[in-house]
Amino acid sequence: MKSARLGVLLAVAAAVAPSTVEAQVVPAFTMPPSSQLSPEALAILKRMDSATAPADIAGKIPKQRAFYQRFNDDRLAEMRRRFRTIIRHETIGGVAVDVVEPAEGVSPANRNRVLINAHGGAFLWGAGSGALVEAIPIAATMRVRVVTVDYRLAPEHLYPAASEDMMSVYRALLETYRPKAIGLYGCSAGGALVAQTTASLHLAKLPLPGAIGTFCSTGAPYTGDSLALSGPLAGNAPVTTSPVSPYLAGVLASDVRAYPLLSDAETRAMPPTLLLAGGRDFAASTLTLAHRRLAAAGVPSELYLFDGLPHAFFMWPDMPESIEAFRLIAGFFDHHLAQGSLK
Amino acid sequence: MKSARLGVLLAVAAAVAPSTVEAQVVPAFTMPPSSQLSPEALAILKRMDSATAPADIAGKIPKQRAFYQRFNDDRLAEMRRRFRTIIRHETIGGVAVDVVEPAEGVSPANRNRVLINAHGGAFLWGAGSGALVEAIPIAATMRVRVVTVDYRLAPEHLYPAASEDMMSVYRALLETYRPKAIGLYGCSAGGALVAQTTASLHLAKLPLPGAIGTFCSTGAPYTGDSLALSGPLAGNAPVTTSPVSPYLAGVLASDVRAYPLLSDAETRAMPPTLLLAGGRDFAASTLTLAHRRLAAAGVPSELYLFDGLPHAFFMWPDMPESIEAFRLIAGFFDHHLAQGSLK
Repeated sequence: MKSARLGVLLAVAAAVAPSTVEAQVVPAFTMPPSSQLSPEALAILKRMDSATAPADIAGKIPKQRAFYQRFNDDRLAEMRRRFRTIIRHETIGGVAVDVVEPAEGVSPANRNRVLINAHGGAFLWGAGSGALVEAIPIAATMRVRVVTVDYRLAPEHLYPAASEDMMSVYRALLETYRPKAIGLYGCSAGGALVAQTTASLHLAKLPLPGAIGTFCSTGAPYTGDSLALSGPLAGNAPVTTSPVSPYLAGVLASDVRAYPLLSDAETRAMPPTLLLAGGRDFAASTLTLAHRRLAAAGVPSELYLFDGLPHAFFMWPDMPESIEAFRLIAGFFDHHLAQGSLK
Repeated sequence: MKSARLGVLLAVAAAVAPSTVEAQVVPAFTMPPSSQLSPEALAILKRMDSATAPADIAGKIPKQRAFYQRFNDDRLAEMRRRFRTIIRHETIGGVAVDVVEPAEGVSPANRNRVLINAHGGAFLWGAGSGALVEAIPIAATMRVRVVTVDYRLAPEHLYPAASEDMMSVYRALLETYRPKAIGLYGCSAGGALVAQTTASLHLAKLPLPGAIGTFCSTGAPYTGDSLALSGPLAGNAPVTTSPVSPYLAGVLASDVRAYPLLSDAETRAMPPTLLLAGGRDFAASTLTLAHRRLAAAGVPSELYLFDGLPHAFFMWPDMPESIEAFRLIAGFFDHHLAQGSLK
């Protein structure tokens, strides 16, 4: 495994400064939408296009936060139209959370189970409506209780503040739930944060959750073809460096709590892991490598890619592909989490 | 599931005549090799480039057969250098086969198991050295007996001749082995043929194998982004039609023995299925959709993509990615096939 790890580390270096010796000139061409998409997804892709963040707010955090607040408010309105849930604002382990339950009630099989969600948003935004957009469809689809965590954000707070908040909530829930009946999941920054939190729990010698889901990102830097292609496929310049949130700026790749899937020991320690993304997500290739590393380490993991769809596509509930993703997520946790009595 | 099936059928139609309404202009750009590749893979990619079939033999079957005979002879020499096996030419169920066993002997756990390989080669070539290239690494890695089938080829023989030959070998082996101790696998045309054979066994009410592997192709027409991208990423024009071998020319998409993964009933009937391909394989997107359809049907399936690598990359054994693929294949069959006594 030593050489495999070294290979990944070299790959990270290569992503930052890709060799041009072997690079290939791709002539201009016309790319149709994926022939696998539903008619609903084709329509949503147009709406996604018109809801893209304007290029001139890049790096301007107050403007980005305002933009994504409106974006997430819109997504939340769609989720509420499709899924009926009951939401309570609470404090768990000293951290603000929203507890989301299906309006029809938690199913008998899930009475003693709970999921913890880490929302996305580049570690810079996404609290509030963004968190609910991720919690509501899973609570309703699986008929399970979901606790979505209002963890501390950058640039006001830096790594590992978010992991600490996730751990505080997890520790507090351990007083009620058995660890194997707890699942963690998140998308984008939340996907990375779930992997980071799991490694932090492992190194703190706490019992690990029964299963985790890292979607649209995971506990490794972004690498591979999907990163390189994400610029041109959106009509932009190629991406030649692995994007890093200000939250993680300056954190070394050797920090196993930040990039656990670069460590053989932390990869081996992962609980069953679900990896899921759009096929055009810049993170898709990163997930395919994570899946291979988990498999080589003997960790049960599953990988699903939704061809032709972008980063965090399932924030848009009005297409069958998103419903399918919610069902895959619910099915995975149902298969892996322990049932039975509370602790 | 009705609407899901319809969606796939529509998708096939879309692949043949992609809508240009939503198509996107991708400007010319420079594509580096995947940052995930090992140094050995970077070197092999250069050798692959210089071993590409010359464009002027496309469609000229005698010239293609001569070219791929030399190509497969070269790959076989590499496989023989790396893996030591014993090969016997036999006739099973009236069909010519090669039986490949590891030189160090079949492992005790695999004494009562057997794998059947369907070689690749567009249903037009690949018998002999091409078949051995696929059988040798798996026989040696898993320490298992592999029977690779010299099935009838097009254009001399058309669908379903190859399925009939695969079924004859399977039926004959059923006299010795329990079905759940038999695995089927193949790459490219062989991947499609494995899915086709499995559906034919199911519809003939024969007991199904314990597990199958469909690599670089499966029981569905080619669709999605990886097909559309495969031309431009190789410096060629975009691919706008699903490639179909002369073997399957004119066969309707509604023929469930030819395209079983377009049928809900045949998808549900599949045994545990391993899907594996290079990330730049034109078939990669086809496998991601197959994986989702198998999961929705409740069939245990696993999907592995090797970023930055092309169609049938693991015919080149001298890179760690190929060794990893052989181990994944061996591990999958070891997990799913029954052990224990012969029939």
